[in-house]
Amino acid sequence: MTKNMNNFFQGKQVLITGGLGFIGSNLARRLGDLGARVLLVDSLIPEYGGNLTNVSGLEHQVRINISDVRDEYSMRYLVQGQDYLFNLAGQTSHMDSMHDPYTDLEINARAQLSILEACRKNNPSIKIVFASTRQIYGKPDYLPVDEQHLLRPVDVNGINKMAGEWYHILYNNVYDIHTCALRLTNTYGPRMRIKDARQTFLGIWIRLVVEGKPFEVWGGEQLRDFTYVDDAVEAMLLAATSDHANGQVFNLGGEAIVSLQELADLLVEVNGGGTYEVRSFPPDRKRIDIGDYYSDYHHIQDLLGWQPQVPLREGLAHTLAFYREHLANYL
Amino acid sequence: MTKNMNNFFQGKQVLITGGLGFIGSNLARRLGDLGARVLLVDSLIPEYGGNLTNVSGLEHQVRINISDVRDEYSMRYLVQGQDYLFNLAGQTSHMDSMHDPYTDLEINARAQLSILEACRKNNPSIKIVFASTRQIYGKPDYLPVDEQHLLRPVDVNGINKMAGEWYHILYNNVYDIHTCALRLTNTYGPRMRIKDARQTFLGIWIRLVVEGKPFEVWGGEQLRDFTYVDDAVEAMLLAATSDHANGQVFNLGGEAIVSLQELADLLVEVNGGGTYEVRSFPPDRKRIDIGDYYSDYHHIQDLLGWQPQVPLREGLAHTLAFYREHLANYL
Repeated sequence: MTKNMNNFFQGKQVLITGGLGFIGSNLARRLGDLGARVLLVDSLIPEYGGNLTNVSGLEHQVRINISDVRDEYSMRYLVQGQDYLFNLAGQTSHMDSMHDPYTDLEINARAQLSILEACRKNNPSIKIVFASTRQIYGKPDYLPVDEQHLLRPVDVNGINKMAGEWYHILYNNVYDIHTCALRLTNTYGPRMRIKDARQTFLGIWIRLVVEGKPFEVWGGEQLRDFTYVDDAVEAMLLAATSDHANGQVFNLGGEAIVSLQELADLLVEVNGGGTYEVRSFPPDRKRIDIGDYYSDYHHIQDLLGWQPQVPLREGLAHTLAFYREHLANYL
Repeated sequence: MTKNMNNFFQGKQVLITGGLGFIGSNLARRLGDLGARVLLVDSLIPEYGGNLTNVSGLEHQVRINISDVRDEYSMRYLVQGQDYLFNLAGQTSHMDSMHDPYTDLEINARAQLSILEACRKNNPSIKIVFASTRQIYGKPDYLPVDEQHLLRPVDVNGINKMAGEWYHILYNNVYDIHTCALRLTNTYGPRMRIKDARQTFLGIWIRLVVEGKPFEVWGGEQLRDFTYVDDAVEAMLLAATSDHANGQVFNLGGEAIVSLQELADLLVEVNGGGTYEVRSFPPDRKRIDIGDYYSDYHHIQDLLGWQPQVPLREGLAHTLAFYREHLANYL
């Protein structure tokens, strides 16, 4: 990155929703290093990504407030006085969104609206970076997928995230509350949820390979792109610090595009061992299989100078090393 | 229309949400004539379009159930045994959606999800036609706007309608509940709300011109298309009766494309008198002004054989005649 973040966040008040989660906690570490005064909000719902272990060692650099983004009153208070809001709290599980669409709606759509209303009424000069997702595109018409691609979500989660993203853009356009949205693709790295596949299938792969157990690859031919978490964090910081980002939606992307089977092979290789089984898609997943997906990230590259820096092999090595050391805290 | 509807709806059970509203009541009349067994659900919220006068004379042809689509329990019961659901209930006011975004969310998004869940669990063989809106496109990139245009809603209402529409498409794609969505453009005709501009600016124009008072034209240069309500009703019937419609989103369109000032002139001419003032946009509307808009409706024309039949002049004449006779019931 050419941009010098060194002094930008020094002494700034920064709120991170989902701050004990995977990306939130990595962002918190970085912001702590940059001298920001960081407040983490997290509900610690067991099925989601929040984990107090994620901020171990940071106890003196960040404050933690346990609450739920659906709690309008606590959010109304917590947004006050903040310079930046990294709005990362969300329900990420496809399956959970189909089994309980209302909870997904409350978290991914309604709570986003109430956070924005809280900012509009109590802190309109805040800058907000919203974590959106490539899931809202659905099955691509063309590759790589850029921001001009139609949104055709294939699950309830995608629809609600789409609404949540657009509330942010709307509040920028109508109320001049500076916001932008990053459509994250498959993000991976230390502190991701590996207990199960709720956050990403790669989580459970990593857990099983570290445990010395076989993991399952569904399909295998599908192409995907993967962003190492440090690169995603860098994109968020760039988006926060640039007025060019206001009202914009940006795809993130990966340093490499690989098939799931290539990824599985690489994971086993970097791990120095492991086995996996290739299985055909379960019928209920087959219906919403999006085939190949990878992002065009020229927009954020052109406007903010971001591009992924960490090669997939290196990112997987960092990740495996982390979980070999900390596995017990993530089960 | 080439399709013969005469026997299609005979004896069929049809539920219309928003059934006492503008389009719902016109649809109910047509379905009554076609021999359907029609159940109208409406909340009669004063600010919305429901009006018992809309079904006067129909008392022996339709049943009326006063309830709110947000009421999951009543909807769960009411969808049972229905062959068709015309899902028209909605909050339509831009301004109301900005002042009270939560109510708009509850009606236009959450209630749609609960209606679909009710159908999935209790009546998965129902066919659903959802009334969506061209508002979800926002400011056009090109004209005419087809279904490949990006959705970039400019108000809370548009975001929630977008979510509501996509829940319908999702439930078709994932659960095989046959649904489709019609993106209505400016629909007008007898039984529209004319008390104020909550449903469409044309409503208040018609009221004022019938009352012999001047009306206001904001801007005036913007191009729009207008669908007479009988044409919109025909599109809904075609969509309901064709399996080709399942999972599809269709624009409706107008027989003519006119500027607002041309429309105002035509209204005055057809009315045989009247005056209007051209005003510049109020600042809060200017920000979300979408400029020119008109739809490309080739998709529904090609797939279902629909096209608007009623010329604008004729439609306005019918509408004015209706309100000259029934004005008192709509104030």
